[in-house]
Amino acid sequence: MTWTVVKIGGAMIDAANTLQAFLQDFVKLPAPKILVHGGGKMATNLADRMGVEVEMVDGRRITNEAMLEIVTMVYGGKINKSIVAKLQAMGCNALGLSGADANVILAEKRKLGEINFGYAGDILEVNVEILQRLAASGLTPVLAPLTHDGKGKMLNTNADTIAASVAVTLGNARLIYAFDKPGVLRSVDDPTSIVHSLDRELYDNWKSGKLIANGMIPKLDTGFSALESGVAKVWLCHANDILEPQKGTELC
Amino acid sequence: MTWTVVKIGGAMIDAANTLQAFLQDFVKLPAPKILVHGGGKMATNLADRMGVEVEMVDGRRITNEAMLEIVTMVYGGKINKSIVAKLQAMGCNALGLSGADANVILAEKRKLGEINFGYAGDILEVNVEILQRLAASGLTPVLAPLTHDGKGKMLNTNADTIAASVAVTLGNARLIYAFDKPGVLRSVDDPTSIVHSLDRELYDNWKSGKLIANGMIPKLDTGFSALESGVAKVWLCHANDILEPQKGTELC
Repeated sequence: MTWTVVKIGGAMIDAANTLQAFLQDFVKLPAPKILVHGGGKMATNLADRMGVEVEMVDGRRITNEAMLEIVTMVYGGKINKSIVAKLQAMGCNALGLSGADANVILAEKRKLGEINFGYAGDILEVNVEILQRLAASGLTPVLAPLTHDGKGKMLNTNADTIAASVAVTLGNARLIYAFDKPGVLRSVDDPTSIVHSLDRELYDNWKSGKLIANGMIPKLDTGFSALESGVAKVWLCHANDILEPQKGTELC
Repeated sequence: MTWTVVKIGGAMIDAANTLQAFLQDFVKLPAPKILVHGGGKMATNLADRMGVEVEMVDGRRITNEAMLEIVTMVYGGKINKSIVAKLQAMGCNALGLSGADANVILAEKRKLGEINFGYAGDILEVNVEILQRLAASGLTPVLAPLTHDGKGKMLNTNADTIAASVAVTLGNARLIYAFDKPGVLRSVDDPTSIVHSLDRELYDNWKSGKLIANGMIPKLDTGFSALESGVAKVWLCHANDILEPQKGTELC
C-alpha cells in the first residue's frame, strides 16, 4: 500500500480556478493519500483587516499570540474546511485535521535561538497509526499546517515540513510538492527549462554557486532530506500536473 | 453502548475558567461521547474587528457570505481547535469535526421564507456510522456548529439543533445541554428555583402563559422534540454540573 502525500502551496489556494482543477486531479489519485495545504496570503490579509501588525524578522513571519489566533482561524477554519467541502462535493470523503486532532502531529515550540519565532512548532511525532486507520475507513486526511504541543497550545508549522515528516513516517511514500512552477527551472524565467532529474550533487553545486532562487532552498532541502530518510519518490511539479508529476522535477 | 452528547454553549466558551473546569468534567464522562460547541460572541467580535456589518432580522443573525467566512474561521478554526488542543492536554483523544469532515452532517441551505437566513443549514442527514467508527478507534468527536451542503459550500447550523440531531440519530443516547444557568428556573432571578423535572404539558402551559424566557424556548422545543424522537434522557444543567446533570432539569 503506497501512500501519496501531496502538498499544495498557498499561492495555488489563492487562485480559485487552479485550486478547483488541482482538487479534481487529487480526487483521481489512488488511495491511500493525504493532502497537506499551505496558507497563502490569507493570514496576512486577515491580519491587515483586523489591524494586527505582522511581526517580521529577516523576512520571516513571527507567530506571536495574535498571529497564532489568525493562522488557527485561517488555516484550520477557512482554508481547511473550504478544501474539505469541495472534495466532498467531488465524491472524495475528506477529513480535515490539524495536528491536534486525534493527536496526529505532536510538536514542540521552537527553542529560543537568535530569533524568537514565537509559536512555531517543530515536529516531534507523526501519529501514523491513526492516519492508516482513517484511510482504512475510506477517509482522505486533509492536513492544515498546524500542530500542537500536547499541553493545550496550537503551534504554526510549515506545510512543506509537515508533508515531508508525514511521508517519512509513513515510509516508502510518494511525496509531491505541487506549486506554481512547472518544476525546478535552470532559468527561472524560462518555463521550458525544467530539470527533470535533480540529484544532491548538482543541487549542492547550484546552491553554493547561488544559482537557486532563495525561496526554493528550504523546499529542496526538505525534499532531499525526505528522500534520504526513506521516502520513495519526491517530485516538484505544477499544481495541475500531479497526475503526471514526471513532467516536473524528480529529486534523486 | 450508550452515547452521551454534550452541548456547551457559547457563553461558557467565552469564560475561560468555566470552560477549563467543564472540559475536565467532560473527560471523566464515560465513552462513547461527543462534544458539540456553540459559537459565543467571538464571531460578532471578529466581524466588528474586520469591519463586517452583522445583518440582523427580528433579532436573528443572518449568515451572509462574509459572515459564513467568519463563522467558518471562528467556529471551525479558533474555537474547535482550542477545545481539541485542551482536551488532548487532558488525555482525551479529541478529533474536531465540521459537518463537512467525513461528511458527518449533510444539510441544505434553508429555503427562502419570509426571512432569507442566507447560509443557514437545515440538517438532512447525520452520518452515525463514521461517528461509531471514530469512537471505536478511541476518538472523541468535537463538533463545530457548521454543516455542508454536499455541493462544496459550508453552512451555519445551530449547535443545539446539531446536538439533538446527533443524539436522535445515534438512538437511545443521553443529551446534556450545558449552559450558564443551573437548569430551568421557576423564577429567572432565583437560582434555587430549579425545576428538576419538566414535562411537555407543564412546559406548554408555561409557554402559552409567557412564563418562559424567550431565549429558552428554541432550546426547550429542540430538547422535547429530541426526547419524543427516541433520545433516552435530556437534561439542561450548568456547564459545571455535567457529571451530575440531575442537579439541573430533566425533560420528561
